[in-house]
Amino acid sequence: MNLIIEHINLMGSFAFAISGALVALRNKLDLFGVLIVAFVTAVGGGTIRDMLLADRDVFWLFDIHVIYAVLAGAIIAMIFRKKLHFFEKPIFFYDAIGLGLFTITGVQIGIDYHLNPLICILLGTITGVFGGVIRDVIVNEIPVVFQKEIYATASLLGGGLYLILVHFEIPNPYLQIIPIATIIITRIIAATYTISLPNIYKKEQ
Amino acid sequence: MNLIIEHINLMGSFAFAISGALVALRNKLDLFGVLIVAFVTAVGGGTIRDMLLADRDVFWLFDIHVIYAVLAGAIIAMIFRKKLHFFEKPIFFYDAIGLGLFTITGVQIGIDYHLNPLICILLGTITGVFGGVIRDVIVNEIPVVFQKEIYATASLLGGGLYLILVHFEIPNPYLQIIPIATIIITRIIAATYTISLPNIYKKEQ
Amino acid sequence: MNLIIEHINLMGSFAFAISGALVALRNKLDLFGVLIVAFVTAVGGGTIRDMLLADRDVFWLFDIHVIYAVLAGAIIAMIFRKKLHFFEKPIFFYDAIGLGLFTITGVQIGIDYHLNPLICILLGTITGVFGGVIRDVIVNEIPVVFQKEIYATASLLGGGLYLILVHFEIPNPYLQIIPIATIIITRIIAATYTISLPNIYKKEQ
Repeated sequence: MNLIIEHINLMGSFAFAISGALVALRNKLDLFGVLIVAFVTAVGGGTIRDMLLADRDVFWLFDIHVIYAVLAGAIIAMIFRKKLHFFEKPIFFYDAIGLGLFTITGVQIGIDYHLNPLICILLGTITGVFGGVIRDVIVNEIPVVFQKEIYATASLLGGGLYLILVHFEIPNPYLQIIPIATIIITRIIAATYTISLPNIYKKEQ
Repeated sequence: MNLIIEHINLMGSFAFAISGALVALRNKLDLFGVLIVAFVTAVGGGTIRDMLLADRDVFWLFDIHVIYAVLAGAIIAMIFRKKLHFFEKPIFFYDAIGLGLFTITGVQIGIDYHLNPLICILLGTITGVFGGVIRDVIVNEIPVVFQKEIYATASLLGGGLYLILVHFEIPNPYLQIIPIATIIITRIIAATYTISLPNIYKKEQ
Repeated sequence: MNLIIEHINLMGSFAFAISGALVALRNKLDLFGVLIVAFVTAVGGGTIRDMLLADRDVFWLFDIHVIYAVLAGAIIAMIFRKKLHFFEKPIFFYDAIGLGLFTITGVQIGIDYHLNPLICILLGTITGVFGGVIRDVIVNEIPVVFQKEIYATASLLGGGLYLILVHFEIPNPYLQIIPIATIIITRIIAATYTISLPNIYKKEQ
């Protein structure tokens, strides 16, 4: 399990580093500003998760590979910076992958700590969503994850589904691929058809 | 003591969740955006407090009741969203209660850890104030608690008073009710008569 | 070593508290808003560093002297608030000192934990830079450290140099003075001649 979690952490870090670097580039930060926002976006959610658990070391502190994954993501984003207007879709896609991968790690760690299922899902959503929240707070925007079509919702859905699959002892790789794919596909469908949550402000307008 | 702290945590979480949800609704966040901002406002201060203490698990991680209290607060705020313009006073009032309740828990935990009295008061203020700071930073406003009439000041006052009462071994419930009421009443008086701290900018104007 | 780290923490806290208080004063926060932003600027980086390490108590929690250093810095900044327009240079200079001092503490703590050298440097940069990041996020600005001439870069440079000097077993006080001075001088030269990182946006313009 731990090996799989580490692998997921690497891929998710790479994906989110690209997303973070692209937002930083859009805001014209300097070279190291881009690197640090990429880093914070990539590891922010998992870092908060690990800090919440008193006895848990933050995952990237003793794992240089995460740093390499972030550097790789940030450098790739910078190399292709000139084609930034072509990047709308990749930003979106990498972000969806990161969301799916990180959510499932967070839920699994919650299970390892025997937390209440609802809190496991919450831990998954924090892991998946808060890197992006910190990214947007740093560049001084209201976090898109709280406004955009079905974002945190996709994470909550996938986290809940994973818990159900664990309960029925579905074997790997299905156990992890099904909820991760659910999150990614939910994001793609929601964005393609700009599906949002039911508008809770309807009646005031 | 622990039972009382848990009870206070629940009531404070409920109060702050309402305040957080209302600010999120004012900023037109989506359904889960509202839930997460309510959650972060409610548990943010106590979460930072518990993360600062190396051996301390974050209070809501092993206590599903806090999550229920936050959900209840957020849902109540959303149900009454249409009457949002009637909510100026309740936002204020719930916020004052949360500030009072959380400040005293923070100071008490500082005492349990045998921290310096000044640091106990600081820990109380962090517990009471930083949920609101995170809330405002997320919706991209300068935290009201650093600008509004006598806010952090009320927390510091109540925290100091609590320490004095502990020193003189005043019994419960007076021990806790007196400083909590002091914080709430200080906030009400300050807001009613718009009393602010002495203006440190006077001479420049 | 620990004594030296503590001494550095005090001086750095004092320097950053002044920088934080001055930014808060510029944004017209109230008295306790100024105190808390000064506090957060001063201890923010070191606090994140200590929270990342699971078994480490946050440095100021058991050390009242840090609180006194922050109070001293904040009060000095407030007393001289009327001459705020004369403060451009002191803000800058205190900030550079704090950056140098805190970076080296962070790297040294990374070495104590036998972390990978790259992660030691990162820990030093987090310690040196994130107090200022939190300060700017709170007053709702994009962190200057990600935009300004050679800021995080100076921290990374000094941190790398310190690691090299440690490797060659250079004795104290040279071991610490050389990289700290390098960071401060790099900042002064970069700001005097407004040297920035190579502009990665050149080609789009």
